[in-house]
Amino acid sequence: MVAKQIDFWFSLGSTYTYLSAMRCAELCENSGVAVHWRPFQLRSILEELNGMPFKEGSPKTRYMWHDIGRQSKKLGLKPILPAHYPNAEAHLANRVARIGFDEGWGYQFVQNFYRRWFETENCTMKESDIASCIAGADQTPTDILERAKLSETLAKLERETDEARKLGIFGSPTFSVGNEIFWGDDRLEDAVKYCLAHSSE
Amino acid sequence: MVAKQIDFWFSLGSTYTYLSAMRCAELCENSGVAVHWRPFQLRSILEELNGMPFKEGSPKTRYMWHDIGRQSKKLGLKPILPAHYPNAEAHLANRVARIGFDEGWGYQFVQNFYRRWFETENCTMKESDIASCIAGADQTPTDILERAKLSETLAKLERETDEARKLGIFGSPTFSVGNEIFWGDDRLEDAVKYCLAHSSE
Repeated sequence: MVAKQIDFWFSLGSTYTYLSAMRCAELCENSGVAVHWRPFQLRSILEELNGMPFKEGSPKTRYMWHDIGRQSKKLGLKPILPAHYPNAEAHLANRVARIGFDEGWGYQFVQNFYRRWFETENCTMKESDIASCIAGADQTPTDILERAKLSETLAKLERETDEARKLGIFGSPTFSVGNEIFWGDDRLEDAVKYCLAHSSE
Repeated sequence: MVAKQIDFWFSLGSTYTYLSAMRCAELCENSGVAVHWRPFQLRSILEELNGMPFKEGSPKTRYMWHDIGRQSKKLGLKPILPAHYPNAEAHLANRVARIGFDEGWGYQFVQNFYRRWFETENCTMKESDIASCIAGADQTPTDILERAKLSETLAKLERETDEARKLGIFGSPTFSVGNEIFWGDDRLEDAVKYCLAHSSE
């Protein structure tokens, strides 16, 4: 038996992660399940596998934005779609998130990040946008950005990416309970149910 | 306003289509929605786009079988997984299905097809398996297979594939109501809801 916890594996370059980032904390809290937020470098894994999932101008990419729009509406979210994609600073943002979750302000940063990327008109998500998201989590952007760029931070993120790879993770968001993985925002409820059925009191 | 009908676009090479093929008719009937079964050549579209979604031995492919297993369990289905993949006779099966839906035995053929592919041990789905699925739908296999191979049948299937392409379809199963498309077995309920909300009495 395991603790009542799900691991939430995500990369800040992912579009569908917007949905889970916005609803995961509340859903899990209401279910009595803790969330372990685990940013990782999805891009490294995708480069080893199929390449990027959403090519510019493809039918799948058009559908993705439309589908995120519909799902957002169900959740009461109001994104301005399509958002700017791909997100060129996703790698930097993941490093910042890694520091943030170590220090207790990661959740606020991720909320700020997705609100800025998805809910702000014409936002191209430059480094200065990441800086604003850090400031919005009551941290000093210059200090955090400097630390985010240290090889030590990269090494931490790469260790997490290795863990994700070992679990067989190939996309974001992915939820895991022990070795059981659930890919996609659509499987969040199933992950929570699985966790409750397989956890100790 | 449109009629109470959803179009169910599918290719018999698709694994996730197993779930929808098994549950779609009953779900729609209970909701008072008609289903228009539309086989098409997904492979032609995929070749123009990203290529095949499930590479042999990839983490995504492993996950796909595991996920289909979990979803099947919820539906009371008992597939023997992983099934043989890819299905080399999918193109022929789609042609047979096209004839079958024109003549009123397509549904039975598709049921037979997925039960044979997914629920029979070590079934590699050769032409002789397709013949058995045709026989199980009370048709003469030699006759139907001969007609399936006619250029006229291919032309019909290609016209349907063109329609799918125009709608922006890039995967199977996809459900459509007018121009609104819903990709994946997970969106079947949403497609039915959308249909009920947008149809005339």
